[in-house]
Amino acid sequence: MNQEINLPPAQIGTRYSTIEGVDDDDVRAIETRVVLEQGVEGSSAPPEVIACALMRDGSISTAELMQAAKERVVIREPRLHTFVPLYTTNHCDSECKMCAMRKSNDKLKRKFATKLEIEEQLRILYESEGVRGVGLLTGEYEGTFSRLANAFRVGWATRTALDMGFERVYFNIGSMQPDEIQALGEWIEPDEPVTMCVFQETYDRQKYVRFMGGGGPKTDYDQRLRSFDHWIDAGFRYVNPGVLVGLSDEETELVRLVSHVSHLARRGAIVDVSLPRLRPAQGLRNASGVPDDKYLRMLAIVAFVCPDQRLVFTTRESAEVQERAIDLCGVFSPGSPDVAPYRRGGRAQNDEETSQFLVADLRRPSEILSALEATGREVAHFVGAPEEWAAPAERGEVA
Amino acid sequence: MNQEINLPPAQIGTRYSTIEGVDDDDVRAIETRVVLEQGVEGSSAPPEVIACALMRDGSISTAELMQAAKERVVIREPRLHTFVPLYTTNHCDSECKMCAMRKSNDKLKRKFATKLEIEEQLRILYESEGVRGVGLLTGEYEGTFSRLANAFRVGWATRTALDMGFERVYFNIGSMQPDEIQALGEWIEPDEPVTMCVFQETYDRQKYVRFMGGGGPKTDYDQRLRSFDHWIDAGFRYVNPGVLVGLSDEETELVRLVSHVSHLARRGAIVDVSLPRLRPAQGLRNASGVPDDKYLRMLAIVAFVCPDQRLVFTTRESAEVQERAIDLCGVFSPGSPDVAPYRRGGRAQNDEETSQFLVADLRRPSEILSALEATGREVAHFVGAPEEWAAPAERGEVA
Repeated sequence: MNQEINLPPAQIGTRYSTIEGVDDDDVRAIETRVVLEQGVEGSSAPPEVIACALMRDGSISTAELMQAAKERVVIREPRLHTFVPLYTTNHCDSECKMCAMRKSNDKLKRKFATKLEIEEQLRILYESEGVRGVGLLTGEYEGTFSRLANAFRVGWATRTALDMGFERVYFNIGSMQPDEIQALGEWIEPDEPVTMCVFQETYDRQKYVRFMGGGGPKTDYDQRLRSFDHWIDAGFRYVNPGVLVGLSDEETELVRLVSHVSHLARRGAIVDVSLPRLRPAQGLRNASGVPDDKYLRMLAIVAFVCPDQRLVFTTRESAEVQERAIDLCGVFSPGSPDVAPYRRGGRAQNDEETSQFLVADLRRPSEILSALEATGREVAHFVGAPEEWAAPAERGEVA
Repeated sequence: MNQEINLPPAQIGTRYSTIEGVDDDDVRAIETRVVLEQGVEGSSAPPEVIACALMRDGSISTAELMQAAKERVVIREPRLHTFVPLYTTNHCDSECKMCAMRKSNDKLKRKFATKLEIEEQLRILYESEGVRGVGLLTGEYEGTFSRLANAFRVGWATRTALDMGFERVYFNIGSMQPDEIQALGEWIEPDEPVTMCVFQETYDRQKYVRFMGGGGPKTDYDQRLRSFDHWIDAGFRYVNPGVLVGLSDEETELVRLVSHVSHLARRGAIVDVSLPRLRPAQGLRNASGVPDDKYLRMLAIVAFVCPDQRLVFTTRESAEVQERAIDLCGVFSPGSPDVAPYRRGGRAQNDEETSQFLVADLRRPSEILSALEATGREVAHFVGAPEEWAAPAERGEVA
């Protein structure tokens, strides 16, 4: 967990996030080799300026950057933690062009997990997959009542998970205004391990309008951006911003994401950072267009310039890319973006008919996490695979 | 409570409610004086035909009808029970012309009670008002997600009330489809004392369209009418239909309401019946147009022809009308149609700015119920007024 990081108390000066680009002259002034050697602490430049310089400097290879980043994040304790996503519904009032959950997608079969279904999914993750971290997801809704009722329901699910013994809950339900934060936040105490996830998707306002501007509650860029500020104002500390890699150019996204992370950290927040790549989804041949090397370079730079923050990585990516990226990350999240998809003793569903998108790695969370631990990496919030998932040789069946 | 009434098991033959009028020849064939003497059990005619004949027969005074009805219902044990309404929000997507909560009413200030507010309201009713019955109310919502999220939230509130020690919960959240019943019903067991209230408002389809047909989820007359059938199909038994007196002519409403009650009773349901009169509301000079005598005649006839069902009466009506009607009723419900309006040791709010309508009697529930018990009537689900509300003489301050 991140609690050990000693961050300053919440600041109320720079209250709202206002994410802008960097000045080219400032970027040129960065001595990239020196920074690479000494780390960001040795420089007075803002981390987003350093990030931009490292992205631009073709003389520094991605491998070098990855090595430097790994050395900085490997000392973190625990090295990794985990949570498994749990979509509690795929209803959504937004119209994001790249998302199968968009309201106008008549082909998606809509589902809503009831009380008993949510409780059973949590029990499966706890008992059958051995995980102690969960991420609760919904769509985003239009109209005050729907939004408040959703916040209420996710607050209940968060409380239920914590009471069941989960050690970390993420929630990802869209932008939040203060009244919505109250409706959810009343279910928990500010110091409980609950992380608000609101990915800006893109920090490019024009691209934002192009992908998210088709109507519905996600059209307002600034309302989305300010969600964390409201959360921090209400006394909470755990936040997880992110970009959906592939919507805009990599340098713009990288710079502004780091700027946002830096703003939130200055306000006293404990920040996880997500950079998922676009995935195919129902009726959408989504592809990020960002090749592996460039993607890993982005991850390495974020890990390097934000060493106190944790990169979140998921099974959207193939096992091969996971293997290359894992030591840059602080959070590894395996699972399925289908509604209530987990089954006792079996693989999760990831039906095109009901899922937000299609993941690249459909192994069970416990199988993936066990394999990761077998490489010598400790994974907090994972208590070990049930015996049924130990490899046959380990079970003594093959010998 | 009603459990002692021995009704037949749920029937699946006449599954859906189809409420029609009665034949004039059948009505003329009723010997009203004989029925008045012997009760409905002595006649083979359906109760709605008898109700119509009693309504039409001007030779039988309202006083006579009231006396006959009182004699039939006074033997019920307990004679009365109570619940207090608790509006958990005034958001609504419907467009009922007579209601201040209608979506297009920009002048109503919208409120949404959070987890802590609902818990505190329940504690106030339990501890400070001494009641053990509560009615949970919301608007009705458009769109599957909002409807399911509302059912979920009201299910939680119902569970919370029962766990706190409430002995009876009514809920009144609009029409319900099977998926919504599941989302709410999972919070309770079918035999728990939870009553679904869905007032048809009017059984006159043309008047229904005139008042409720302005758009939104309440426009569908049949979806509303079938809600109880879905509830019974799901294994539940407690229902509360009703008409809003003043929307259509009294005879039509009376006949069809009794027909609906009779249908539900035949299916094995335990039925409470509501006949509230229209009240003034924000910006609406609502008046039922039905004078007291005619209104009491309707109540008396329902009580007489449906002696196994309980009439629900509220503080919409003045203390004077309450006094005249009380012995026809089986349920007496004092309280305010404002959102989370109860205050410890004080009167409830009934602000025009936030209330569904304005009640005629704003005394505290415990004050009203104590006064009622002081007349020698037992009220189940009321444990007695807190000392602060005992009359000064009883407290020994005056002597």
